[in-house]
Parts: sequence; C-alpha cells; structure tokens
Amino acid sequence: MLSKAKIRLIQSLQYKKFRKAHALFVVEGLKSIQEFIHAGWEIDTLYTTEIAFAKLNKIPQNIKLSEVSELEIRKISFLQNPQGMLALIRIPETQNMVYENLRGRYSLALDRIQDPGNMGTIIRTAEWFGIQNIICSEDCVDIYNPKVVQASMGSLARINISYKDLLPFFEKIELPIYGALLDGESIYHTQFATEGIVLMGNEGNGIHDSLMNKIDYGVTIPNFGSAESLNVAVATTVFCSEIARKKING
Amino acid sequence: MLSKAKIRLIQSLQYKKFRKAHALFVVEGLKSIQEFIHAGWEIDTLYTTEIAFAKLNKIPQNIKLSEVSELEIRKISFLQNPQGMLALIRIPETQNMVYENLRGRYSLALDRIQDPGNMGTIIRTAEWFGIQNIICSEDCVDIYNPKVVQASMGSLARINISYKDLLPFFEKIELPIYGALLDGESIYHTQFATEGIVLMGNEGNGIHDSLMNKIDYGVTIPNFGSAESLNVAVATTVFCSEIARKKING
Repeated sequence: MLSKAKIRLIQSLQYKKFRKAHALFVVEGLKSIQEFIHAGWEIDTLYTTEIAFAKLNKIPQNIKLSEVSELEIRKISFLQNPQGMLALIRIPETQNMVYENLRGRYSLALDRIQDPGNMGTIIRTAEWFGIQNIICSEDCVDIYNPKVVQASMGSLARINISYKDLLPFFEKIELPIYGALLDGESIYHTQFATEGIVLMGNEGNGIHDSLMNKIDYGVTIPNFGSAESLNVAVATTVFCSEIARKKING
Repeated sequence: MLSKAKIRLIQSLQYKKFRKAHALFVVEGLKSIQEFIHAGWEIDTLYTTEIAFAKLNKIPQNIKLSEVSELEIRKISFLQNPQGMLALIRIPETQNMVYENLRGRYSLALDRIQDPGNMGTIIRTAEWFGIQNIICSEDCVDIYNPKVVQASMGSLARINISYKDLLPFFEKIELPIYGALLDGESIYHTQFATEGIVLMGNEGNGIHDSLMNKIDYGVTIPNFGSAESLNVAVATTVFCSEIARKKING
C-alpha cells in the first residue's frame, strides 16, 4: 500500500528539480531495471505488482521490495502502458572525469541536446557502436529525465556520462575534435584518427559559435536528396557507424 | 471564426478512421506546410493566425485561407506548442506503383513499423540519403498520422510511399532484397548491388517469418558494445548511409 506522500514523491521525479533534491530517478520495466541492478546501481525501492514479480529472476537480497496493485502502479508510472514494475534508483554522485579514459578511443560531446528522445537514442546508439563516454554541455536535457531513461533502453546503466562546460573541457583534453557541420569535409572521405571526440550540436541551432574554433575537423554527412536536415540522433548514428566501420575496414 | 463542427472534424483527424473517411490529414507549421504546397499537394484549407500569416510568402491564389485566433489554433492543434498555422491537406488517391521506378536504385520496405516517430524519422532520413520510394506493409502505422507528419519534417511531401502486402510484392519485383537481420553478414562487408530493396522489420519482433525466404541477403549491423538492439530508425540510417557511401566510394 503506497502512501499519498510516496505517490507524490515518485510523481515529482518527472522534474529535474525534485530528482536533484532527492537524488533519485525512475526506471520502469523489468528488463531495464534488471540492467541497472546488474550494472551495480543502488536501488532505493523496487515497486512491483504480483504478476510482474513472478517474472523477476533472482535479485540481490538487499533490494527493498514493495508490492503494489495495478491501480497503484498506474498512479506512479510515467508510461501510457505501465509495465508492472518501477524502480527508484539513486543518482550517483558526480565522479571526476578520468581524462585518461578518453585516450585511444572515440567519445561523444553533445552541445545543448534538448529532446529527451534524442538523448536516449544517442546513448543507446553510442553503446551499440562501442562508445563508452559521453560528455554533455551543462544545458543538455537531464539524462535522468524519464523519457531519456526510456529511450536509452538500459544503455544508460552502462555508459559514462558527465556534464561539463565544453569550452574549458576542449581546452584541457588533447584529442582531435570532429565537429558535425553543414560545410565540412564529407564524412565518407574523412580520415578519422585512432582517438578523438565527435561533437554534435543542438537540434535547431547546431554547434554553439563559442565552440567553433575548438573544432579540428569539420565533418559533413553529404545530402543525397532534398531533405533540409537530419535528426541529431540519426546524424550521430552516421558518425558512430563510420568510425566503427573504419576501425574494421581500415 | 471556427464552427464547433469544424473543430470536431479537425480534431477527429488524429484518428486514421476519420482521415480515411474525409480523405484529409493535418500538417502544422509554416515550413512543413510550404513544402507540401511547393510539392503540389491539394490544400483543402489553410488555418492561420494573423501573426503567422504575416510570415507566409506568396502562396497560390486558389488556396482557401481561414484566419483564426490563437485560442482557436490551440483547439485544433495536435502540438503542445501550436505554431500558428495548420493546413488540412487532401490524401491523394493511391497510385498504382510503377515498378520500373524501383529499377536502378534502392528503395525501403518496412514490415510492421508501429511507432509514428520512427516512421517519420525513417521518411526524413531516407530522403536525405536519396531514397525516393518506401513500401510499407499494410499493418505499418499510417503515414498521415500527425506524429509521422511531424517527425518527417516535410520529407513526406516528396517521397513516394505505398502500402502493400509485402509477400506478393516481393514475388513480383525482380530486385535483390537485403533484409536487416541479427545473424546476417556484416553490413560493412556486404557488396550492395546497384539496385535493390532494404527490408526493415518491426520494432520488437523484426521481420515476419513469412518474409524470411524472400530475403536474398541477410545483413547485420555489427554490435561493438553491450546494447541489446538498435532503434529501427537508427538501423535504417546505417543501411541508407552505407549504400550511399558505397555509391561514392565504390
């Protein structure tokens, strides 16, 4: 039986302000929740209906379980079709970024990505293509937004993501920066180094002016038709795919 | 001044049944509407606020304009942030597909794509990469769904899209069919012919069993990480990009 106060608390976690205040966020659905458990995240409480609980494989003994009714799960779920299981998970304290971890591989830098669906899809796609680190500008959408969590399909549990002021960050790292621009060299002709940062810009406005002179290589996805632009998660996909392909094909 | 009946009619167009009955669908926003006008679609009525009207460049004389208030546009808009302009556009009669148009190029076939955001993104991405034809299974989401229209960002105005029973269609066309599978050859090693069909499957279930033996080449996007799957619009992007790249790079 959920108290009214608890229901209000969970509902409030749709807003960043309350996620920050409570250091909690919501993950829904058996599969995603298991990925966070498996990756060692601290589960505050796991709310589950009796039916969903039966589908749950062995979970760590120390996880606090709370059985709820179908009606109750509807009250706390952010989904149109609640999945019978919802976890409150602790937001970890921000770790200092270990710059050495960016060496010898590619990472993504995201400038002011606003749409949570795009952010979640970028996280999921990055993981598929073996990218382990994403650096977000401080004004990107919050990665613990329920829609980001949903679209990332569990990949959020495994990718290192940090928020940074990108300008000093770019000044500090000594890695080539490849910026997604409209007037760069064709991505299909770009020689990607063995390590680097791919910088993607805001949905409507692209990369901020202040970052432009930090870009070592402007890279463009050639346009073969009349579409005016590509969705930013789609454009990120092309970068991830090309870099992964060149690792294989040389 | 909009009548209640008119408001009800427009609101009803969020449902396929009513779009079909009236042969009308809704496009919102100056930019998208202009793309449909420019591409020669039949505009039934253009509803516009005074402010939005001022931004409108010359439009064909024969378009029926209806000035509405900000309040009225809120009532008929499907968007959270209405853009001051909404057009009812006539759904064209289904044209017989000219099979010859599929020759010498790549087209997409979509099996049971359900999510309107995915469908719209696929249409937009396909156009960017020069794909002109999309064949949807009859149980794909309706392309005139407002969320598809929105996500396609105007590309819907220019791409040929038809709904077909895919099995007889595949039996009729004499083109190689490349199916997106989990256990095919790596896309980075696939030799794509100069023409063909790329077949993408449903978000959760992939390509239907009944279509499997029509696939000439099973093609896989290699997994470089631990993510379990890719979003279908993202996977389609990798196919479009690779085929376009090979056209350039050989």
